[in-house]
Amino acid sequence: MKKLVIQTSNKIFEILIGEKLQNLQKYLPSEKIVIITDKNVKHHLQKDFLPYPVIEIGTGEKIKNLDTVRNIYKKLLDIGVDRSYFIVGIGGGVVCDISGFIASTYLRGISFGFVSSTLLAQVDASIGGKNGINFLEYKNLIGVINQPDFVICDLNLLNSLPETELLSGFAEIIKHAVIANKNMFTFLEKNYNKALEIDFKVLEKLIYDSLLIKTEIVNNDEKEKNERRKLNFGHTFGHAIEKITGLPHGHAISTGMIIASMFSVKKGLLSLEEASKIKMLLNNFGLPTNYKSLKKDDIFDAILKDKKREGDIINFILLNKIGNVVIEKISIKKLEEMLNDLC
Amino acid sequence: MKKLVIQTSNKIFEILIGEKLQNLQKYLPSEKIVIITDKNVKHHLQKDFLPYPVIEIGTGEKIKNLDTVRNIYKKLLDIGVDRSYFIVGIGGGVVCDISGFIASTYLRGISFGFVSSTLLAQVDASIGGKNGINFLEYKNLIGVINQPDFVICDLNLLNSLPETELLSGFAEIIKHAVIANKNMFTFLEKNYNKALEIDFKVLEKLIYDSLLIKTEIVNNDEKEKNERRKLNFGHTFGHAIEKITGLPHGHAISTGMIIASMFSVKKGLLSLEEASKIKMLLNNFGLPTNYKSLKKDDIFDAILKDKKREGDIINFILLNKIGNVVIEKISIKKLEEMLNDLC
Repeated sequence: MKKLVIQTSNKIFEILIGEKLQNLQKYLPSEKIVIITDKNVKHHLQKDFLPYPVIEIGTGEKIKNLDTVRNIYKKLLDIGVDRSYFIVGIGGGVVCDISGFIASTYLRGISFGFVSSTLLAQVDASIGGKNGINFLEYKNLIGVINQPDFVICDLNLLNSLPETELLSGFAEIIKHAVIANKNMFTFLEKNYNKALEIDFKVLEKLIYDSLLIKTEIVNNDEKEKNERRKLNFGHTFGHAIEKITGLPHGHAISTGMIIASMFSVKKGLLSLEEASKIKMLLNNFGLPTNYKSLKKDDIFDAILKDKKREGDIINFILLNKIGNVVIEKISIKKLEEMLNDLC
Repeated sequence: MKKLVIQTSNKIFEILIGEKLQNLQKYLPSEKIVIITDKNVKHHLQKDFLPYPVIEIGTGEKIKNLDTVRNIYKKLLDIGVDRSYFIVGIGGGVVCDISGFIASTYLRGISFGFVSSTLLAQVDASIGGKNGINFLEYKNLIGVINQPDFVICDLNLLNSLPETELLSGFAEIIKHAVIANKNMFTFLEKNYNKALEIDFKVLEKLIYDSLLIKTEIVNNDEKEKNERRKLNFGHTFGHAIEKITGLPHGHAISTGMIIASMFSVKKGLLSLEEASKIKMLLNNFGLPTNYKSLKKDDIFDAILKDKKREGDIINFILLNKIGNVVIEKISIKKLEEMLNDLC
C-alpha cells in the first residue's frame, strides 16, 4: 500500500492506494455510518464486514442530478442521519461526486470519505475537492469545493471493471506521464502489459505518480491560474470527439492527445520520434489514435458549442517534449486550419 | 452609517449599517451582476440605478425549497451567468438564505453579497455564514457555510415593513441585550419609542450592537461549543409557541423569553425586579408576555417533537442578571414541572 498525504489550505487528508475496502472500518471516525454506492459496487459490501445502512443509487452520468440528490436527502432523513454521522461514498466518479455534494450540503455539511472503485476515479481521487452534479445538459454545473477525510483506492475492485472503464483510467494515467513525468512514461512503456493485467505493484505506482502530478498542478494553480490548464492536454479535441462519436472517454482522449501531439510536431515544438512513442504507448494499451477519419466539421461545431469556452481563443496545450507542456492561446479558426492541414 | 468588519477563518467582510441600496454599485466587484429578490423588495429596484438582470422569487418560508433553487439555476443559465458574475441577494431572510445557497453551489461557488431589507435579517446579517433551504418539514436542512463579500443593511427599506416583521427584529434585538449587554438594555428602555418610529440613529446603534454580540458569540463558539447556545434564550418555548399558536416569530420569542426569565426567578438566579424590567420593555415594544393562557400540553408535545433536540435533556438558557446568562441542562420532565409550577 502507498499513502499520499494531501494538504489543502484548510485540511490534511490521506489517499490510501492499495488499501482494501474490507479495512474501511480502520478509517471511520464514528460508529454512525451511511454508505452511498451503486449496484455495480454493492455486491462487494458483504454484510458481515460492513454493517451499515446503504443508500443505493443508479449508474451513469444521467443520474448525477438534483432528483437523485433529493432522494438521497430523503433516505438520510429516514435513517435519522444527524451531524454525528459520517458518509462513505463507495464507487466511481458518479458515486463520489454525488456523495461529496450530499455530505457537503446535508445539515450544512457532515464529514465524509471515499472508496474509489474505478481506475478513473482513483487517478482523480477527488484531488481539488471538486464534487457536484449535472444540471440540464451542463456537466458539474452545481457543486462545492470540499475535501473528504480520506480516499481509499482499492485495486481489487478494478478486477470487475469493464475494459473501456479501465482504459479511461489508463488514458488519464498516460496523459499525466506525457504532460509531466518522462520517467513515468518510460515505466509505462516497459510495464503496459502488467498494468493491463492489473498487477497491483505496477498500478500502485502508476496511481501514486498520477495523483502526485495532479496534486502538484492543483496546488500550483492556487498561485498561478494557468497551471491547472495543463490537465486539459488532449481534452479540447477529446471532449468534442467523445460528444460527436459517442466513443468512451478514454478512447476519445487518446485520439485528442495524438492530435495535440501532432500539432506540437507541426509547430516544431515536439520531435516526430517522441510523438510516435506516445502513439505507440496508447496503441499498446489498446487505445485508438487514428484521427484521419474524423468528421472535422462536426468536431468544430462541438468545440464552438462548448459552454466552458471563453471567447474565440482557446488555451491549447502543446508538448515540447514528453513530460513538458506549453500553453498557447490559439483561435478556433487557427485550430481548424491546423486540423485541416493535418488530415 | 456604521461599519462592522467581520473576520472569519478564511475571509474578511464588511456589514454596512445604514448604507443605502442606491449606493450598492460602490461595493460591486464586477460589471456582471445578477440580483435575486422577491416582490416585496422589487419595487425598490428602480431600473435607473440598478441596471442588472433580476430574478424574482416568491415570499415566505414555504418557497425556501429545492424547487425554487432549481428554477433559479435555470434562470442563471438563461442569463448566461459564468464565474465572472457576482450575485446580490436583496431581501429578508428567505431571499438571503436562498441567494447564499445558490451562489455557493452554482459553478461550485461564485461571489455574492446581500442587501438585507428586514430588521430580522439585519440583526442576523448572515453572521456565521449560514445559508440554506428547507427540505420536507425540516428548516434549513440543506445548506453550506459560506460568507458573503458584504452585507448592506438599508434602514430605508424598513419603512415599508409590516409591523409584525419589525417586531420580530426587535424581539431579537431585545434578546441580544438581555443575554449580553446591560447598557444596550438601558438604551432600549430609554429609546423604544424612537426605535419603533424607525429613527435611523437609534436603529443603527441597535443593529450594530446586536451584530457585535452575535459575532462575539459565534466567534467564541469556534473555541467553546456551548457559546452559541446562548442565542437560544427564549427559543425553547418560543419555537414551540410559534408552532402551536401560529403567532409571529417575534411575539412567540417574546413570550418564550418571559417564561425563561420567570424560571430564572424561581430558581433564585434573577431578581423579580429585573424580570419585571424585561417584561416592561417587551410590552413597550408591543410584544406579548402573557404565558398564563398557553396550552401547556401542546407546548410540551411540540418540544418533544423538535428534531434538533438531542435526547431528553435540554440546554436551557437562564438569566442570572440582565446581560448575563447561564446554561443549564434540564430534563424535559423537569421543564414541564417548572411550567406547571409557574402557570
